[in-house]
Amino acid sequence: MEKINLASKLAQFQDHWRPRTVARMNEYDVMLVKVRGEFVWHKHDETDEFFLVIDGNLEIRMRERTVRLGPGELFVVPRGIEHQPFAEGEASLLLIEPTGTPNTGDPRTAAPRQEL
Amino acid sequence: MEKINLASKLAQFQDHWRPRTVARMNEYDVMLVKVRGEFVWHKHDETDEFFLVIDGNLEIRMRERTVRLGPGELFVVPRGIEHQPFAEGEASLLLIEPTGTPNTGDPRTAAPRQEL
Repeated sequence: MEKINLASKLAQFQDHWRPRTVARMNEYDVMLVKVRGEFVWHKHDETDEFFLVIDGNLEIRMRERTVRLGPGELFVVPRGIEHQPFAEGEASLLLIEPTGTPNTGDPRTAAPRQEL
Repeated sequence: MEKINLASKLAQFQDHWRPRTVARMNEYDVMLVKVRGEFVWHKHDETDEFFLVIDGNLEIRMRERTVRLGPGELFVVPRGIEHQPFAEGEASLLLIEPTGTPNTGDPRTAAPRQEL
């Protein structure tokens, strides 16, 4: 593989809530995604989910509390915990999850895997 | 867990080549490390290794080629590939590896696992 420049990759797409896989590590996808507005409430029973904010601000709403992240801040949502990502303005995130994890928690509604 | 601010965590230690685990995701450690100079040549036969440069510049020397990373650039060293990280000045990195992976490739010489 080649090195990945996050800003260069982020300049190559504009749509929201459609993660792009930019690298693989073992059986995990390293993904970039742009988000804006509210995502669906969902959970992943089989895996934790890694969020690192690159640009903008992100709320990760959980039933018991909300975590607010800015650039250079990360959070791992534990498996089985319902959460709703929300960004008032556009935000760019680095996500890491096992390859094949549905972004909505449900394969029927998940964004298709896209490499970039 | 709480959110992790990378800059705040990096301000809490100064030594080099001693990774700090700042979060867990499944069976992986999310680590911060400061580096300067040459590390040992080593490899990990069982796992890929994720590097993301936060500050400074890093060379990942491999036998066939060298990858040069600046802030906001990432690279995954494939399992089994010999590599030598090198930083002329100080650099700060985010690393992700399975918990217990020896940073030198050898448990006898590895830095002890430290949480921060």
